[in-house]
Amino acid sequence: MADYIIIVAGGKGLRMGEPIPKQFLLLNDKAILMHTLEKFYHHNPELKIILALPSDHQEYWTKLCSEQGFDIPHIVVNGGQTRFHSVLNALGAITDDSGVTGVHDGVRPFVTPEVIDRCFNAAKQDGAAIPVIFPADSIREADDKGSHARNRDRFRLVQTPQVFRTDLLKKAYSNGYRESFTDDASVVEAAGHAITLVEGNQENIKITSPFDMMVAHVIVSGDCDQKG
Amino acid sequence: MADYIIIVAGGKGLRMGEPIPKQFLLLNDKAILMHTLEKFYHHNPELKIILALPSDHQEYWTKLCSEQGFDIPHIVVNGGQTRFHSVLNALGAITDDSGVTGVHDGVRPFVTPEVIDRCFNAAKQDGAAIPVIFPADSIREADDKGSHARNRDRFRLVQTPQVFRTDLLKKAYSNGYRESFTDDASVVEAAGHAITLVEGNQENIKITSPFDMMVAHVIVSGDCDQKG
Repeated sequence: MADYIIIVAGGKGLRMGEPIPKQFLLLNDKAILMHTLEKFYHHNPELKIILALPSDHQEYWTKLCSEQGFDIPHIVVNGGQTRFHSVLNALGAITDDSGVTGVHDGVRPFVTPEVIDRCFNAAKQDGAAIPVIFPADSIREADDKGSHARNRDRFRLVQTPQVFRTDLLKKAYSNGYRESFTDDASVVEAAGHAITLVEGNQENIKITSPFDMMVAHVIVSGDCDQKG
Repeated sequence: MADYIIIVAGGKGLRMGEPIPKQFLLLNDKAILMHTLEKFYHHNPELKIILALPSDHQEYWTKLCSEQGFDIPHIVVNGGQTRFHSVLNALGAITDDSGVTGVHDGVRPFVTPEVIDRCFNAAKQDGAAIPVIFPADSIREADDKGSHARNRDRFRLVQTPQVFRTDLLKKAYSNGYRESFTDDASVVEAAGHAITLVEGNQENIKITSPFDMMVAHVIVSGDCDQKG
């Protein structure tokens, strides 16, 4: 039985205002994407890593790995038009459907071993598990008349890795793309399966802005006491 | 015509695991609360500042101001059992109802002048305005069967300052407390007034955890290019 982790690294990096896609930006002289792969490899070297990367980034990535002596084993597949299509391509590289498969954002390098454990363990038991945190701010929902206050206790902010029984994940993705899909849990949920929520970690941010990048530099420098 | 800003600093600081309430923690050798007051004073010295502080913190605050030569003019009122009751006490100190009044979290020292401007200007025009940002993560809502994915495009995370016509704010707060109130906009909305949303700034975090404190140290050290 094999377990997999799909790392989705489709970002074009345009939002950073930099020529280099954001998953390749350096933290402590190492690409963000390398930090992310290391988290999963060091957690469980048996986990098979599949990296979905736009085809025009692959040469750069190979060169970067070679230059930096980055030798964590992983398969590279082509990224797609959307996150959904990248995951679909990665699922095509999975040959053993008997275990569980996680999907993780390439630009979330600060997931803790505890959170990875929680997600994989809960998915093995329940079929589908994702890490969430409570919002720190009040929440409003837009409506026809403008917006209205909502009870924030009812809401959760969703992180990754999102982990599923592999056969369940493949079946859900075979049902086709909808614009409303924002993550893998929404795909699996649309296929009729309940999602188990486990506790995420606050440092598990998605690096998408210069502000996030600034926070990332501090976390990686070890000033922050990371707790799962 | 006078405009006011109420700074709510009721936190007991228990979540930080420190003996000192979090609004008094130092950033660049200055209490968080002093940074917050400075933001509004430097933006508009005519703005009347009312600080709602638990009675058993007031002696410490006075001593801190004296030691540090902190001389930004402000009135201190007693904090209440909840945020609602702190604001209610502060409203009691407002003698001129002809302008607008903002309410701001004492532990949000990184609001930008641009965001303060936007909130006060929109409130002067529309009666009620709050700063919001888009969530970076997917959102789920809890329900009877567990939880379900929601379209994150419909949601906004709410910051402060929340600014209102003073007469409107006083009237809304006179209607009494409900547990569902998580901010001032929800109080004013419950009184029947629409809320105008303006763009907040990502650095305008509410400092409530050690992780937030770590991020705060970096922002204040100037590594981050703050943009409104």
